[in-house]
Amino acid sequence: MNTEQLLTLDAWQAVILLTRRELKSEDLVRACLERITERESEIHAFAHLDPDAALATARALDAGPVRGLLHGLPLGVKDLFDTSEFDTTYGSSVYAGYRPRTDASPVALCREAGAVVLGKTVSTEFAYFTPGPTRNPHNTAHTPGGSSSGSAAAVADHMLPLALGTQTAGSIIRPAAYCGVVGFKPSLGRVASGGVKSLSQTMDIVGGFGRSVRDVGLLGAVLTGDKRLSGWSEAALPRIGLFQTPSWPQADADVQHAWEQAARILSAQAKDCEDVVTPDNFADLIQLQKNVMTFEVARALSHERIHHRDRLSAPLNNLLEDGMAMTGARHAEQLSQVADWRQSIDALFENHDVLLTPSTTGIAPEGTATGDPLFCRSWSILGLPSVHLPFTTGQKGLPVGLQLVGRFGQDHHLLAVAQWVHERLTR
Amino acid sequence: MNTEQLLTLDAWQAVILLTRRELKSEDLVRACLERITERESEIHAFAHLDPDAALATARALDAGPVRGLLHGLPLGVKDLFDTSEFDTTYGSSVYAGYRPRTDASPVALCREAGAVVLGKTVSTEFAYFTPGPTRNPHNTAHTPGGSSSGSAAAVADHMLPLALGTQTAGSIIRPAAYCGVVGFKPSLGRVASGGVKSLSQTMDIVGGFGRSVRDVGLLGAVLTGDKRLSGWSEAALPRIGLFQTPSWPQADADVQHAWEQAARILSAQAKDCEDVVTPDNFADLIQLQKNVMTFEVARALSHERIHHRDRLSAPLNNLLEDGMAMTGARHAEQLSQVADWRQSIDALFENHDVLLTPSTTGIAPEGTATGDPLFCRSWSILGLPSVHLPFTTGQKGLPVGLQLVGRFGQDHHLLAVAQWVHERLTR
Repeated sequence: MNTEQLLTLDAWQAVILLTRRELKSEDLVRACLERITERESEIHAFAHLDPDAALATARALDAGPVRGLLHGLPLGVKDLFDTSEFDTTYGSSVYAGYRPRTDASPVALCREAGAVVLGKTVSTEFAYFTPGPTRNPHNTAHTPGGSSSGSAAAVADHMLPLALGTQTAGSIIRPAAYCGVVGFKPSLGRVASGGVKSLSQTMDIVGGFGRSVRDVGLLGAVLTGDKRLSGWSEAALPRIGLFQTPSWPQADADVQHAWEQAARILSAQAKDCEDVVTPDNFADLIQLQKNVMTFEVARALSHERIHHRDRLSAPLNNLLEDGMAMTGARHAEQLSQVADWRQSIDALFENHDVLLTPSTTGIAPEGTATGDPLFCRSWSILGLPSVHLPFTTGQKGLPVGLQLVGRFGQDHHLLAVAQWVHERLTR
Repeated sequence: MNTEQLLTLDAWQAVILLTRRELKSEDLVRACLERITERESEIHAFAHLDPDAALATARALDAGPVRGLLHGLPLGVKDLFDTSEFDTTYGSSVYAGYRPRTDASPVALCREAGAVVLGKTVSTEFAYFTPGPTRNPHNTAHTPGGSSSGSAAAVADHMLPLALGTQTAGSIIRPAAYCGVVGFKPSLGRVASGGVKSLSQTMDIVGGFGRSVRDVGLLGAVLTGDKRLSGWSEAALPRIGLFQTPSWPQADADVQHAWEQAARILSAQAKDCEDVVTPDNFADLIQLQKNVMTFEVARALSHERIHHRDRLSAPLNNLLEDGMAMTGARHAEQLSQVADWRQSIDALFENHDVLLTPSTTGIAPEGTATGDPLFCRSWSILGLPSVHLPFTTGQKGLPVGLQLVGRFGQDHHLLAVAQWVHERLTR
């Protein structure tokens, strides 16, 4: 295979060849490194790279036994995850030169499954809104989104097939949408998160990016320990809930048209496609997510807030100040509300296997601001699994897609339906 | 005040004097250090100490403005929390000499509130069951319990008035009971846990130890950001649910007698004291907690499991192996069951402000094994706040007490009732 063929292989295709020893990990890693060399000065997807170490790891995998579901696959790791073999800076100068002792749990699990960590991908400052240098591969005048900016951009630009990310508000789904790749956020609580810089003790979740649904399923299977995420069979005809959500008026024409077009296509083929009856007060979830996050981030980043205020961005300092002004009494009430919501939302899935809903308000904005997680906040606080599927293009040819949301714990079913949907949307 | 008076001051009393500048933090810290010097060779409560740094911090606090709720108070920090000014070894030789870059969020919050970190207290190996060197101050042939062994023992032995701990199964309530101090585990999700070594992403919770209910309330107020935990007014006459739980037959005579005696005393004074109707299948929570914990610990400690197996204890290696053999599919089901339980358990609190239940199966066992968290597992997985109250003594004069469990998010009310109860039990 030539370099271009290697770079356009899906991860699930590559891992079959790697496992059969019909493809060398070293060749795949080398192709990725060539692509990175060619493109990185424009895209700035990486915070830290170590090509020699990656090649050495690949050669060792080629020479040894097959390790697991990710055997020999190049992997990007958001620079919010501790790594023992790369510096880890959480998108902040506060951690310049910091080398953790230990790999974060998800990184260790991926390496155990045979992944070759190519490098650390750019995160916004502590996974909040202040952007890193990464640019959108489809148009470098535009943001790739955040906070998993580098992971989404690197996968979109074929620098690597798979990358890890995290979401607290919209940090997986939004950059996946802006960069036109598949993003997957598992159900809350399914992934061990030790060694991942904590923002919110009640909402942080680890997930990832790929260029196909099967690819994020591979990664998801390793992260959750649930093999069904990588080995589903064709879904029965799904029941799809069409859910514009109360935020619909904030979606622009690109997003609204894409959603309507998808709803038309799927209505003709699904078992059923019905409008979701919006739960009472559903719109309140947006502000609830913001409040819980603000309270928790201010305390999670206490050390930085107290000792390094002068090295934090103004927006982050403002957030931390707002959070410290909030009371724990309100936070306790909010956690009770969240628990009630998580329980009651399950009823939505009695009639729908998945919900079809927007991912973003529009295409990736021009400039550096990382965009609005409006359409992700509710699903983040509800802890439901979700997938972003690329679908079409909007203004300036930039990607537009859709979000599918699944029932809690039914991540494998969500992915099976997402595969079914994606095939029908991209035919 | 002489040294003995200083060492028997409750934290809430000391902080009033410290805030009024009627007591110097330096004097209090010095008294604690003297006690530690005298006793540490017998008790082994500390993993890492830095007397000079503590004294310097105390002097700086004495010379500066009043910082917060913990102004000038000596604090012990379980060696499971990252600290930038002390080595952090998580009870394992794997981390010998490890000095984190950053204080864990709870440590930073306590220091911000004026606490003087005296040292790191012994944790069992990664907060699981393999004990450290700590001995029970009441009888050094007996365990102090685990995993927050050093924190409980240091507070019990008057080495310091307050200490941080964590609980996943029973690691706060059990050592508090064995050592005869007050232990407090807040509602799940209320405390930011960044930089605390993760065992279970769905059950870990940070709390602490003191010698009075008011003292753990001070610490709880700082950890949760909820001032009501330190500033409650006298509770109205409480409604107490008497709950032996299905594990009652495993409680020995000491524990059963203590519980029955407490129930008699409280029945005469509370608004009402009624037997709790055991929820259907409540006994299943024990195994559910074990299963979720085993699955999650095996993944949380992936780096150690993969790279340092030879430096982990045999019991921990066995646990990790068991956990890796469990499927993520089962884990997802279990998380759904847990969510249902957390919702349905709330009904218990419609008729009861708190539940009175055993803390342990008996006194601290002789030897080094850290004892059984049987009576804590259900409350850990349910995420409810709980308090251990010392009450009486059992065999060999070792402490026996009781556990009070509160409604989710009503930590302040639990503490107010606990204070009311404790006053009546210790009169």
